[in-house]
Amino acid sequence: MIILVAYDISDPGRRDRAAKLLQSMGLSRLQRSLYAGRGGAAKARDIARALERILDSETDVADILVLPDHAWSRRIEVGNGRARVPGRARPPGVHIA
Amino acid sequence: MIILVAYDISDPGRRDRAAKLLQSMGLSRLQRSLYAGRGGAAKARDIARALERILDSETDVADILVLPDHAWSRRIEVGNGRARVPGRARPPGVHIA
Repeated sequence: MIILVAYDISDPGRRDRAAKLLQSMGLSRLQRSLYAGRGGAAKARDIARALERILDSETDVADILVLPDHAWSRRIEVGNGRARVPGRARPPGVHIA
Repeated sequence: MIILVAYDISDPGRRDRAAKLLQSMGLSRLQRSLYAGRGGAAKARDIARALERILDSETDVADILVLPDHAWSRRIEVGNGRARVPGRARPPGVHIA
């Protein structure tokens, strides 16, 4: 299974803390506010509880999903965004450009 | 099935066009650069081709996934982000805060 975390955080400090948290929990950065990594429902709940301590629940939001591997491997990537996310993880998936 | 689109687009004009495109294709806005809506692989490919005409493939990126309904309905939402995404679609899912 793959855990996908997307967040929308207004404050740069909180954003930075969320990014460090997700990387420390083994997720790779796909986009500036999109992370993915191996894991299931229990790990997703751990991530949610940890993010809850960082986010301002009124202004910030994070969506955490647990995907079957096939949903992940069939993912379509448009553009590559290397310029924006140097070292962007390039997990399996269909690459259009 | 649910289509999830996350994008990271540097230019405000392109970002705006991508947002309008996704809404015109029936997706709802979850976060500033995260959209979701009903649909399968064929619609996902249509979205990818349409986004490809908007994005700068070097600086921008979009990830498009097709999720089974259960992956979507078990999604965990931390915070509600209403302040950032007024009218944030509130599809089914576990809401923590």
